[in-house]
Amino acid sequence: MLQFELLATEGLARRGRLTLNHGVVQTPIFMPVGTYGTVKGVLPRSLHDMNAQIILGNTFHLWMRPGLDVMRHFGGLHGFENWHKPILTDSGGFQVWSLGEMRKISEEGVKFASPVNGDKLFLTPEISMQIQTVLNSDIVMQFDECTPYETKGHLTTEAEARHSMELSRRWMKRCMAEFERLQNPNALFGIVQGGMFEHLRQESLEALVELDLPGYAVGGVSVGEPKEDMLRIMAHTPHRLPAHKPRYLMGVGTPEDLVEGVSCGVDMFDCVMPTRNARNGHLFTRFGDLKIRNARHKSDERPIDETCRCYTCAGDGQGHGGFSRAYLHHLERCGEMLAPMLATIHNLHYYLQLMQEVRDALDVGQFAAFRARFAADRARGV
Amino acid sequence: MLQFELLATEGLARRGRLTLNHGVVQTPIFMPVGTYGTVKGVLPRSLHDMNAQIILGNTFHLWMRPGLDVMRHFGGLHGFENWHKPILTDSGGFQVWSLGEMRKISEEGVKFASPVNGDKLFLTPEISMQIQTVLNSDIVMQFDECTPYETKGHLTTEAEARHSMELSRRWMKRCMAEFERLQNPNALFGIVQGGMFEHLRQESLEALVELDLPGYAVGGVSVGEPKEDMLRIMAHTPHRLPAHKPRYLMGVGTPEDLVEGVSCGVDMFDCVMPTRNARNGHLFTRFGDLKIRNARHKSDERPIDETCRCYTCAGDGQGHGGFSRAYLHHLERCGEMLAPMLATIHNLHYYLQLMQEVRDALDVGQFAAFRARFAADRARGV
Repeated sequence: MLQFELLATEGLARRGRLTLNHGVVQTPIFMPVGTYGTVKGVLPRSLHDMNAQIILGNTFHLWMRPGLDVMRHFGGLHGFENWHKPILTDSGGFQVWSLGEMRKISEEGVKFASPVNGDKLFLTPEISMQIQTVLNSDIVMQFDECTPYETKGHLTTEAEARHSMELSRRWMKRCMAEFERLQNPNALFGIVQGGMFEHLRQESLEALVELDLPGYAVGGVSVGEPKEDMLRIMAHTPHRLPAHKPRYLMGVGTPEDLVEGVSCGVDMFDCVMPTRNARNGHLFTRFGDLKIRNARHKSDERPIDETCRCYTCAGDGQGHGGFSRAYLHHLERCGEMLAPMLATIHNLHYYLQLMQEVRDALDVGQFAAFRARFAADRARGV
Repeated sequence: MLQFELLATEGLARRGRLTLNHGVVQTPIFMPVGTYGTVKGVLPRSLHDMNAQIILGNTFHLWMRPGLDVMRHFGGLHGFENWHKPILTDSGGFQVWSLGEMRKISEEGVKFASPVNGDKLFLTPEISMQIQTVLNSDIVMQFDECTPYETKGHLTTEAEARHSMELSRRWMKRCMAEFERLQNPNALFGIVQGGMFEHLRQESLEALVELDLPGYAVGGVSVGEPKEDMLRIMAHTPHRLPAHKPRYLMGVGTPEDLVEGVSCGVDMFDCVMPTRNARNGHLFTRFGDLKIRNARHKSDERPIDETCRCYTCAGDGQGHGGFSRAYLHHLERCGEMLAPMLATIHNLHYYLQLMQEVRDALDVGQFAAFRARFAADRARGV
């Protein structure tokens, strides 16, 4: 089940409401990444406090561990990780792609050795649908081949990108057939591929639109290409997708990328950046980014961001929490777990709050003004 | 400032109320260890939720990092770590002792090389008092020499234990003089030493009692001795200390040790066991201990402890949290940060709840019955 209502538009930017089997998602939205059934470094209660509406799970990882027997036992991923709002799962395609030389792609699917125990495994469009049906994620992604930016040391050629895109297109049809056979009650998204070639993207998109899927994603970006190529594809594809369907830009990106993506007509984003960077002491703020290990924070009494309302910066409103840069700097230097814990809360809150502000601006037709202020604030320096 | 009221007794066990500069502590109490200004792996809000009343800080560690300049800048440890309930700090004596061959003890103090940057450092009774005054901890511990169980490969002899105990006794007087000179407004505790020799413990105790300190600790246990020696000293010393002063058994121990300690007249405990063991997947429960990595938990839907009300076991009462053994097992196997985070919440909650139940039993004169039930429950198996 998926319903998508467009509530407002401004230029190509869209304000929407997405209704899924486990609840409603206000768009544009950022989705925290919960690879192994946990958003790294953060308590689920903190995710609720920061108003996370939908999180990701990774089909490939969850298939490896804990495996489908356990997942079936718990009736899917929601019950297993005790998260009862919507979940989106990827298809495993990106992960097998990431295995590099350890995998072998054929028309049928992808053969590879398990990175956990070396077992020989085979992932196909059908198996990906079977796994995602067991996971019972609200949004199921098609199994695709993520076209790389470089192939065997050279930039992927047009012929290679076409071959890859056409394979994903054929796999899409197999996904649909299996998804229906399994009577999966959730929503299956198709993924536009085509590498860095606009006309291939256009071909991919048209073939997918013909299938009248409940939603569409743009894949094969954030795969090592220069920023300008990513922005070029982001400007090309999203607004050409059907207006009344949700659009998801996979694996993107920085705060600037998200705001730019919204202006190009994207509704949904996911990225490991806020969580991964938090674990490296890289913090996002309204006024630019901050490396908490830097010695200049040693005695700084200010919070990371004085305008931020997260537990790390402002506390919980009951007199608890609200920490100085000096304290976070100290925790990071000492290798204390609390450093990535507090940094993750802050970074995720920043991403979610940014999208809340984007939605608020779209609600009142002020997105253009918001973009200008966002850029000026971020350039100010922290 | 320190006030201690005895509210009830049963045998040697005591129910008390300790009033310190930053608040009231109900005893008997377990104090979570916050070495570097953070109880490892747990958000301060979680400590509040589980009703932690007082936490520890380590003088030696905080002197190394962030150092006294930063501590002064924040007006002490409470402001720096944003914890506004009572704090107890150790003296640094145990840590320099732990440095082993890297330190040199003289009448004046202890010379050693900083384990952080190799700087040559000198810690004396006076310097320990100066550091703890900057930290502004509610309870300040005397600088002592922790008499080891083994000295240079042999069991510490009576002569060695006497020499060490007498040094600590002389250092106590220097601590008192410096504490007064600094006009430290908090409470200074003396530490009974004497190794595994009861008559030396008695001598040490009598000398300290003569000084009429606001509280007393039993040190030099949990230093590698067999359990029976620890229990022997625990049975000997606490109840010989003044009845109207709080008694603190340093670095102890298992849940069984805590209940036994209460029955011997101890009021205060600290130990890294609940936090450290949590990070190794060792969980404490009412019905015995549990290794969450064990394969038998792979599909187990039950919480760690069905009688436990912590966030990990039972959730937050608003529908969030409450996780299965299977999920915790999976997180631990995948090396996810959430595993030690949830395990730490559970273990600390268990220790604090155990002491709450001890206090409740003492309040109604049922401590003997509580002990019997506690032992039977723990033996049941989980």
